[in-house]
Amino acid sequence: MRFIEAAGAGNAAASGTGTEVGDDAAVRVGTFHGIGLGPGDPELLTVRAVRLIAETPVIAYFAKKGRRGNARGIVGSWLAPGVEELPLEYPVTTEIPFNDPAYVDELARFYEAASASIATILSAGRDVALVCEGDPMFYGSFMHLYIRLVDRFRVRVTPGVTGMSGCWSAAGAPITWGDDILSVLPGTLPEADLVERLRSTDAAVIMKLGSNFAKVRRAIDAAGLTARAIYAERGTMAGEAIVKLADKPEDTAPYFSLILIPGNGRRP
Amino acid sequence: MRFIEAAGAGNAAASGTGTEVGDDAAVRVGTFHGIGLGPGDPELLTVRAVRLIAETPVIAYFAKKGRRGNARGIVGSWLAPGVEELPLEYPVTTEIPFNDPAYVDELARFYEAASASIATILSAGRDVALVCEGDPMFYGSFMHLYIRLVDRFRVRVTPGVTGMSGCWSAAGAPITWGDDILSVLPGTLPEADLVERLRSTDAAVIMKLGSNFAKVRRAIDAAGLTARAIYAERGTMAGEAIVKLADKPEDTAPYFSLILIPGNGRRP
Repeated sequence: MRFIEAAGAGNAAASGTGTEVGDDAAVRVGTFHGIGLGPGDPELLTVRAVRLIAETPVIAYFAKKGRRGNARGIVGSWLAPGVEELPLEYPVTTEIPFNDPAYVDELARFYEAASASIATILSAGRDVALVCEGDPMFYGSFMHLYIRLVDRFRVRVTPGVTGMSGCWSAAGAPITWGDDILSVLPGTLPEADLVERLRSTDAAVIMKLGSNFAKVRRAIDAAGLTARAIYAERGTMAGEAIVKLADKPEDTAPYFSLILIPGNGRRP
Repeated sequence: MRFIEAAGAGNAAASGTGTEVGDDAAVRVGTFHGIGLGPGDPELLTVRAVRLIAETPVIAYFAKKGRRGNARGIVGSWLAPGVEELPLEYPVTTEIPFNDPAYVDELARFYEAASASIATILSAGRDVALVCEGDPMFYGSFMHLYIRLVDRFRVRVTPGVTGMSGCWSAAGAPITWGDDILSVLPGTLPEADLVERLRSTDAAVIMKLGSNFAKVRRAIDAAGLTARAIYAERGTMAGEAIVKLADKPEDTAPYFSLILIPGNGRRP
């Protein structure tokens, strides 16, 4: 087996610093792992993720305040007895509008504090694994800690199966064929932009539905793609629901949901 | 643990047909598995992929004539002793131009023959797993057999870590932030189209480089993105090479290579 080592410019500079000299003796500095847990089914962790989770003394995960969090739910059966857990609790921000600079500031303070907590443990010579739904480097909150720690610590990233892969597999919907272009679009885009981008792509995945759902549905309709659109909720998880978009009456969707528009490319 | 069952319209219709009545007795019909092997590192298979590969009596994989193939290379250490292997050898098509209808015909005949071989085994009551690099439903050759078999047999798809996830993790390059749009583009696109699409996306992955490499590099230059572009070859595999595109002198690239253009979205 080999390890994948994060090899960004920052990390390349830091990768030689596996030890630090303290007052008395060389102290080993811990490794920071970012580990993808996949789309939700605990059997869709990679072999490497399972091994690293079993070997790492401190397992960190993001969660909403007062909740255990979905990452903790997925990883539960793989945790070693006696492992130390480090929940990283998002600040309650419901009272601050999403686009408010105060929201961004509050999040930045949270990521700084979380990075500092992890840095303290790493500096004491212990490894920390931050486990994340999906793939850590694809819209992952892990990335906010990664950029804060990669210049000072050894970081290794274990990719995971993305939520969208889990959904199109569960849907039985091949997503891209031949020379298809795939566009991954956030539902936060303005309606006219969504329509234009949907018209000019072969295949699409639309994420971040939530309160954008009605707008996204109108855009798909306007682009003439409703017949091909599939709505997937909690793909590969308990409570999985996959239906044609046209068969979904309500205009609401939870966080773990997306819309798939499979491509129609070359099929010999 | 639960299974993900491919739930396309075709498969939903077929999912009840787990048995067929023969002359003498009910004969169990086998299940066709499409199993993603991930980007190349054998430790990046999922736990479920490893289990199904160990349990399935016939393991099929695509390969070029006379070669063992990359999928066989990745899966090798996970095969059970005595497992039956079914290599599906692509027809030699080097003498036929890629856009020639004769090429498409030859491929179609190949997929028909491969599907027929697998159908024969399934009809005899044995399960078959087709193992594939990356994710089976994302530009996967598996899909060509899937659409030929899903109406007649029970099919289950196990998603895998994509090659692009393997590459951006190995590169230490977070690919999408916040509300970034990701475009997955084939290098086969005309140069002007590539430039336009690169200019209008936040993040991009360009696949199918090969003989398109020089054109793709010119397009990235024209879009002003060379400074952000990363070239990744054999990500997570032996012989992995990841460099800034600007630092790659030659205009050639093997099949297992891609270019990453990470997004610059919201970073609190």
